[in-house]
Amino acid sequence: MVTPCFTNRQWIYAKRPSGRVTEEHYELKETELNEPLASNEVVVKAQYISVDPYMRIQQAERQSFDPPHPLGIVQRGGAVGQIVASNSSSFNEGDYVLSYTGWQLYAKCHASELRKLDAATAPITTALGVLGMPGRTAWFGLMEAGRPKPGETVVVSGAAGAVGSLVAQFAKRAGCKVFGIAGGASKCSFLTEKLGLDGAIDYRQYQDAESLSKAIAKITNGVDVYFDNVGGMVTDAIIPNIKLRARIIICGQISQYDGGLDKPNLGPRFLQHMLFQRATIQGILARDYSHRMDEMLEIVAPWVKDKQIVFEETIVDGFENLPQALNSLFEGKNVGKLLVRV
Amino acid sequence: MVTPCFTNRQWIYAKRPSGRVTEEHYELKETELNEPLASNEVVVKAQYISVDPYMRIQQAERQSFDPPHPLGIVQRGGAVGQIVASNSSSFNEGDYVLSYTGWQLYAKCHASELRKLDAATAPITTALGVLGMPGRTAWFGLMEAGRPKPGETVVVSGAAGAVGSLVAQFAKRAGCKVFGIAGGASKCSFLTEKLGLDGAIDYRQYQDAESLSKAIAKITNGVDVYFDNVGGMVTDAIIPNIKLRARIIICGQISQYDGGLDKPNLGPRFLQHMLFQRATIQGILARDYSHRMDEMLEIVAPWVKDKQIVFEETIVDGFENLPQALNSLFEGKNVGKLLVRV
Repeated sequence: MVTPCFTNRQWIYAKRPSGRVTEEHYELKETELNEPLASNEVVVKAQYISVDPYMRIQQAERQSFDPPHPLGIVQRGGAVGQIVASNSSSFNEGDYVLSYTGWQLYAKCHASELRKLDAATAPITTALGVLGMPGRTAWFGLMEAGRPKPGETVVVSGAAGAVGSLVAQFAKRAGCKVFGIAGGASKCSFLTEKLGLDGAIDYRQYQDAESLSKAIAKITNGVDVYFDNVGGMVTDAIIPNIKLRARIIICGQISQYDGGLDKPNLGPRFLQHMLFQRATIQGILARDYSHRMDEMLEIVAPWVKDKQIVFEETIVDGFENLPQALNSLFEGKNVGKLLVRV
Repeated sequence: MVTPCFTNRQWIYAKRPSGRVTEEHYELKETELNEPLASNEVVVKAQYISVDPYMRIQQAERQSFDPPHPLGIVQRGGAVGQIVASNSSSFNEGDYVLSYTGWQLYAKCHASELRKLDAATAPITTALGVLGMPGRTAWFGLMEAGRPKPGETVVVSGAAGAVGSLVAQFAKRAGCKVFGIAGGASKCSFLTEKLGLDGAIDYRQYQDAESLSKAIAKITNGVDVYFDNVGGMVTDAIIPNIKLRARIIICGQISQYDGGLDKPNLGPRFLQHMLFQRATIQGILARDYSHRMDEMLEIVAPWVKDKQIVFEETIVDGFENLPQALNSLFEGKNVGKLLVRV
C-alpha cells in the first residue's frame, strides 16, 4: 500500500462575488494529504495552475453551462504538474501530466483523469494553452463554427488573449484577412507585429460603439467571420458591419462577467442585422470538442514544434497570487495565456 | 401590335416614415396605361394586393437586405390578378397570375416575371400566403434553419400572423410540442382551438420580459426551437429559456420596425445564453429559398387542398385603403395573411 504524506495548500471558493472576484471570495487552507492510494490512484504536484475567464461564469448564481461552482470546495481548474506518488502502472514518479485538480498544490487523482505530457515535444505549459483547452476552443470554434474561406475577413475580439491570439493566427493560416480588437497600444502592436495581422484596433480609443463601428467599417470593409471573446461595446460595434451570410462565434463575453450574467446589462438590439444579412450566431464551448482533441493536436502540435505559431504566456509566480491572477483577466492586462507558477 | 388603354391608379411611395407608416407617406396617382406591348409583354389587372411587414423595413433609411425603397415610385409588393391584355403566347386574357407589380391596379409586365395560377387547385389568394412567400418562409425557415425533431418544444412569436400561424402548424406536423405567443385573447384562442397548439401566451398580459419569461418557463419547460417574428420584449423573455443546442430563427423583428431599425432600441444583452447552451441564431429571408419554391409546394399544396392546414386571411376592401392596411400590421390586429382586395 502506498501512503503519501504531503502538506497541501488549497484555495477554497468561499463566497460568490457580485462584481470582481478577489481574495475575499476565497480561503487559503493548509491540510495534510496522507490517505493511502487505492489501485490506479496517484498524487500530482502542481507546477502551473490555470486561471481562465470561464471560472468567473461558474461563480455566478445562475445556471450557466454548469450549475454554479459550489462554495466550500477547492476552486476548480486545470493544472500541469508531476506525479509524486503512484499506485498505477500507467504513471511513474516524475511523469508530467495535465490534470483538472484546481487550485491546490497536491491532489490525489485516478489515473484515468490525467493526460501524460511529453516535455520533450512541447513545453508542459502548452497543455494549458495552445495545445490544451484554449487551443481546442480556438481551433474548432474558428474552423468548424466559423468556416473561414480564403480571402474572407475575420475579426477577433480579445485578440491578444489566450484564445483570441490563436484564432487570429489560425485565420491567417486559413488565408483570411484578419483584424484584431484589443485594449491598449502594446497589445495592438503585438497583434500586427508579432502575429502579423492585417490590422488592429484599440477599442479604448473610442468613446462609444458608434465611433468604434465606423473605425471597424473603415479598416475592414465588412466582416465575414466575427470571433467574439468579449461582448459588450466591441460586439455592438462589429455586428452592424457584418456581411451577407456572416458567421458570428460566441466564445466568451468577458466584458459581462463582472455582474451582467445574473442581471444583464442593456445594449442596442441587433437581431435585425441577422435578418438583413442572413447571418448566424453560434455559441461554442471547449467541451463540445473534447473528444476531438487528437484531431486538433495532429494539426497544431507540429506548428508549435516548428515555431510557426506564437503562443505568448504571462506567468505569475506564487500560489498565493491565484485569486488576484484570476481577477487580472478582467482588467485586460495580460497577453496570451495567463498561468500561475506554484 | 397590341396597345392597351387602361386608367391606372397607383400608390406612390413619397416620404420616409420616422415612426408608423400612414397615408401621408404616399401619394395616390391616376395615370393612363396606353403604351404598346412589346413581344412577350402583358398587362395584369390586380385583384388582391399584398401588404407585408418587410415593406416597412425597406422604408428605413438604412440599407437592410435591400437598399432603401426609392421615393417617387410605386410601392413595391406582390399581387394576384388577371391578364387583361397579352402579347405573349404563354398568357391569355383571363389567366390568373402572381406578380410583383406593387400597389397599382394595372401593370405592364414581361411574361417571365409572372407565375400562372390554377384557380381550380387553390384559391388565388393563397399565392400571396400559404402557397407563396409567407408559406415558403415558414416552411424552409422552420424545417431547414430550425431542424425540428419529434418531441422537441417549438415556440413561435407572432404566432397568429401570416408566417407564424404556418410555422406553428408545420411544427405540429413535425411532431413537436408547439406554443404560440400572440397579442390578445382572441388570437390566443385561435392558436389553441383552431390551430391545435399545445398552448398560447398573450404577451400583453405581462408588464415586462421577466414576468413573461417566467410564464414561458412554466408552460414550456424550456425551448428547443424559437421562431421569431417580432423581437423586442417577447424575444427577451424567450431567450433565457432556451435549451442545450437550441435553434433561434430570426424571420422578423416587427416590434422594432417603427423606428428601431435606424436607431436601435436598447434591450438586455443575451449572448451569454448562446454560450451557455451552445445555441445558434440564424436570420432567414424568403428570397433565400425562392429557387426551392416547387419543393415547398409539392409538400404543402396537398395539405392546403385537403384542408389539413388552416390559412386564415384578413381581407380589407378598397385600393384606397392600402397604406392603412400596411400600418395595421404593426397594430397587431389581423389574424393570418392580410390582403387588400382592389
